[in-house]
Amino acid sequence: MDENIVTAIGTPNMALIKYWGKREEKLILPMNSSISMTFDETFNTKTSVLFTDRVPEDSFYINGVRQDLSDKDIMERFAIIDIMRRMAGTTSKAVVVSENSFPTAAGLASSASGIAAMVFAANSALKLGLGTKELSIIARQGSGSSCRSLSGGFVKWEMGSKDDGSDSCIRQIAGPGHWSDIIDIVAIVSKSKKKISSRAGMKQTVANSILYKARPAYAERACAEMEEAILKKDFERLGMLMMKDSNNLHAVMLDTYPPILYLNDVSKQIISSVSELNEVENKIVAAYTFDAGPNANIFTLEKYRSKVEELLSNIEGIESTRISKVGNGPRIIDEDASLIDPSTFKIKSG
Amino acid sequence: MDENIVTAIGTPNMALIKYWGKREEKLILPMNSSISMTFDETFNTKTSVLFTDRVPEDSFYINGVRQDLSDKDIMERFAIIDIMRRMAGTTSKAVVVSENSFPTAAGLASSASGIAAMVFAANSALKLGLGTKELSIIARQGSGSSCRSLSGGFVKWEMGSKDDGSDSCIRQIAGPGHWSDIIDIVAIVSKSKKKISSRAGMKQTVANSILYKARPAYAERACAEMEEAILKKDFERLGMLMMKDSNNLHAVMLDTYPPILYLNDVSKQIISSVSELNEVENKIVAAYTFDAGPNANIFTLEKYRSKVEELLSNIEGIESTRISKVGNGPRIIDEDASLIDPSTFKIKSG
Repeated sequence: MDENIVTAIGTPNMALIKYWGKREEKLILPMNSSISMTFDETFNTKTSVLFTDRVPEDSFYINGVRQDLSDKDIMERFAIIDIMRRMAGTTSKAVVVSENSFPTAAGLASSASGIAAMVFAANSALKLGLGTKELSIIARQGSGSSCRSLSGGFVKWEMGSKDDGSDSCIRQIAGPGHWSDIIDIVAIVSKSKKKISSRAGMKQTVANSILYKARPAYAERACAEMEEAILKKDFERLGMLMMKDSNNLHAVMLDTYPPILYLNDVSKQIISSVSELNEVENKIVAAYTFDAGPNANIFTLEKYRSKVEELLSNIEGIESTRISKVGNGPRIIDEDASLIDPSTFKIKSG
Repeated sequence: MDENIVTAIGTPNMALIKYWGKREEKLILPMNSSISMTFDETFNTKTSVLFTDRVPEDSFYINGVRQDLSDKDIMERFAIIDIMRRMAGTTSKAVVVSENSFPTAAGLASSASGIAAMVFAANSALKLGLGTKELSIIARQGSGSSCRSLSGGFVKWEMGSKDDGSDSCIRQIAGPGHWSDIIDIVAIVSKSKKKISSRAGMKQTVANSILYKARPAYAERACAEMEEAILKKDFERLGMLMMKDSNNLHAVMLDTYPPILYLNDVSKQIISSVSELNEVENKIVAAYTFDAGPNANIFTLEKYRSKVEELLSNIEGIESTRISKVGNGPRIIDEDASLIDPSTFKIKSG
């Protein structure tokens, strides 16, 4: 087959209404719909993909390290390549090289940006010509929430109802240009690798949290309200909904046995400080959300930005902050930016 | 009237199935039943009570400090005195002097031991001759969970169903001698006064936590199972139920808006360490529970005590530990131990 190396850039997404729990494990069908904002390229993952018959086996590198394809987590992520190869009707080996601009597995959804870039690049390398919806269905099967990174702007992952997962796909609520003055201040609290994976954690929550039973229906309603808030650019409503959903998520994690505790003392301080600021301002000017880790994402509007940055600068334990606006979704980049050496079919050195 | 000073000792109780939320604010009627173990006198509150016509006004001292009876929290606690005075048909002024052997308001339920001692002493000073059930109904109206300290052993506070609260009272599940090898290792994480009172916190939870709706029915079932575990001295079942209930409680607190966060990094470490120990031992040898504060209560059996103490000694941030066994409930103590000066009707100096 045509052995072209394709490189794409993908970005993470930050869920405003979270995904936590599968109704079907194999296809990764969620218990509820979720909504996110796709990041701009402040945080990004570059991924080069090559399909070739001239190597004996698949290889997958993340941040320069060759991954063990028999490792369960890696295998599930790499299964995407198998799905796409099957669709293209080829048995060529794959070389996939991925590089994050930010720490892996620290609750920053690096897998989402990586998978989005990989799926986007593979679609082109294999000349599948699939659209966003189809690509999101494939990405979902590698890592659920990554599917939301296949589109820019504000994105809803519809839970769907079909057993084959063909309607569990994304839909763009609003494009990247819709709300240009909303920003996400990502506060890095800890770069440490998280102890429990989301995959294992959510399974335990669904299995034994008593309170979790109330979450899916709540999240579904929250999605409907969130979509409205986004379309109306109603920051106060968006902020309230996202904070409540974050609290709700971490509550059901805590109600899991044994409990899953991602928030630490710094996260708590951020929650308190944001709550106090909103109280003082007598309106919601900032809203926090936490994924499966202690890092905070604090959403605000440009006009409140200095206020929020000052607030955060007074919190001990925040290692750094970076700002993302609404991003455009994945894109193919120039051939010369490739991470694969075209002569060795291995990761480029240096 | 007869102006005798009566002094009683009361002890805290540690809830195994928690009380969090009122269905009626004035009488303090709970949303669910709860179960606790009454502490021995390792932690205790001594309270002297005097009713006299020879002072111009009520006075109430806690740990040597005269309390402001117009302060809302103090007023609600002191309302007990009014109730009992009314029952005795007297208008004498009250002098109440209370001393804790442990830090106040750090999540150690010092109000419970204080109220238990106060009610017990006042019952005698006013010659009301009320029994445990009646006294628990009075204590409940000062501070809900304090009613459980009116009896020793393992105690259930039945939520009751009547509007007048006459069936929202305690019942002893098992006496202090029933389970002599169970111990509670109280790990003091922070002596700081808690930021949000339980009273205010639980009101917010009931008002706006989505997940809370599932708690009362769950807690009611858990009470039934817990009673069985206590009667059978089934430590593993007791441990599992108490940890799950503690997780559940702190989950609904976190699901409150704005969220209520009592657990800190040290609490989290205790939770993880206890969970790991139980995993290694392949059975429950220790069980944690947290009230409205970061301090941990770790229940275990005498035979596992050294193991658990070693575990805790390796956790940074635990300031001290103290052990309580099952206690006997309040008792009247000798006149010469009184905290009130019989000549001045004021707090004894020195």
